[in-house]
Amino acid sequence: MTDQLPFILLTNDDGINAPGITALYKALDQIADVAIVAPDREMSAAGHAITLSDPLRVTDVELEGGITGYAVNGTPADCVKIAARAVLSRKPDLVASGINLGSNTGINVIYSGTVSAATEGIILGIPSVALSLATYHDPDFAPAGEVAKMVVTAVLENGLPENTLLNVNIPPLPADQLKGIVVTKQGKAFYNEKFDKRVDPRNRTYYWMSGERKSMEEDEDSDERMVQEGYVSVTPVYYDLTHYNFLDNLKSWPLFNGEKFDVRERS
Amino acid sequence: MTDQLPFILLTNDDGINAPGITALYKALDQIADVAIVAPDREMSAAGHAITLSDPLRVTDVELEGGITGYAVNGTPADCVKIAARAVLSRKPDLVASGINLGSNTGINVIYSGTVSAATEGIILGIPSVALSLATYHDPDFAPAGEVAKMVVTAVLENGLPENTLLNVNIPPLPADQLKGIVVTKQGKAFYNEKFDKRVDPRNRTYYWMSGERKSMEEDEDSDERMVQEGYVSVTPVYYDLTHYNFLDNLKSWPLFNGEKFDVRERS
Repeated sequence: MTDQLPFILLTNDDGINAPGITALYKALDQIADVAIVAPDREMSAAGHAITLSDPLRVTDVELEGGITGYAVNGTPADCVKIAARAVLSRKPDLVASGINLGSNTGINVIYSGTVSAATEGIILGIPSVALSLATYHDPDFAPAGEVAKMVVTAVLENGLPENTLLNVNIPPLPADQLKGIVVTKQGKAFYNEKFDKRVDPRNRTYYWMSGERKSMEEDEDSDERMVQEGYVSVTPVYYDLTHYNFLDNLKSWPLFNGEKFDVRERS
Repeated sequence: MTDQLPFILLTNDDGINAPGITALYKALDQIADVAIVAPDREMSAAGHAITLSDPLRVTDVELEGGITGYAVNGTPADCVKIAARAVLSRKPDLVASGINLGSNTGINVIYSGTVSAATEGIILGIPSVALSLATYHDPDFAPAGEVAKMVVTAVLENGLPENTLLNVNIPPLPADQLKGIVVTKQGKAFYNEKFDKRVDPRNRTYYWMSGERKSMEEDEDSDERMVQEGYVSVTPVYYDLTHYNFLDNLKSWPLFNGEKFDVRERS
């Protein structure tokens, strides 16, 4: 019987000891065989980095409640790669990344280690879901875990197109106050970074990056807006980055007319 | 007069001492005021990581030929952010990232620090270009520098749509053998990673990630294929990751019909 359960790989970018990943484990363990392979420390804003110039190490860890997992001294994308290629004995049917502390909406999708782990899943041909709880304060991951179970079940039932993951953001509301679940697009919210310039005890200058989130006029179906209104937001994210709508316009530039291009003449 | 020249920020992911960035400087210095703000060491495969939990330091450096620049102990994306927000006295008119040693085609666009620096440029509202020379052996950056000058000139003349950068890949050919310059889409080439398992002198297991590039059947207008055929490839890259073509299909899943979603019932 156990062999017929779907096999799900969990990872995250908050690190293997973060409460969000055990909450996700507890929710998905009810419907699947689950393995955890996650960074050994916080890797937020890791983007889609991979580790080529340092050795990777994998350590067995025991988490709360007797859950076991593998900690990797690498990025979320490293974890998915090494899990699928070296650590796990069979290929996962699904990658679930999270549950992240803090939303991954708008521009954050670009920086998010949570989303990048799911991206790595689809690069490996595995349907993948990124899950984030939109708060940093007193998080209750239980309702988000239930949402994760529903979304993962739907993905296992329906499948996903090639190169596509689902980016799920969950408002920090009690289960009975979530308004619903909607399909959204990536919103426009971004950060206005500041660099706080300081001097260290050895009299050397350094900077801390910080930033305030800039709210934008958001369309009705944007991830950011729907989460603020109390809905679970589900955005299909695609990793073919080609701007297809701009291809024809770009081809009309004189540079591409086949005549103007001659490196020698212009040297 | 000088004040009327466009102002271009150069960065890269091979590190400020890499020859590709001085080649790019020499080419673009002919048409613009140029500033270099680049990582102090190699940051390849950094993805779109940013540094939030460590202090950033900026150091003046002198490069070959008396060119000066700023080295940052961070990622390519960090360099563009801190350049625009803290280091430079005026906002650049364009960000040029490269010239990278090795192509950034197909799946590499996802991992590339070179492309991520250009992505950071467009996040800040600055037209941006990523440039890569498709070889690791005996690179001659001079023809690629000429290509950079042509593409940058065209971008300054034509502008770019919001959220769009140009990802340029240049074959490693002498100037008189480049076949032309074409608009392409992101190809399908990817890596088949291997993890080489070893034991260190203290008897602990570690892994090296490596991988061989898997060629795929590539469409005629793919970046990978056109570079192999001797053309300069220019792909417009877009950072709105929403999979618009899949939105309607996804909305048709029962999960989103407005009835099935009730976290409480399913707990």
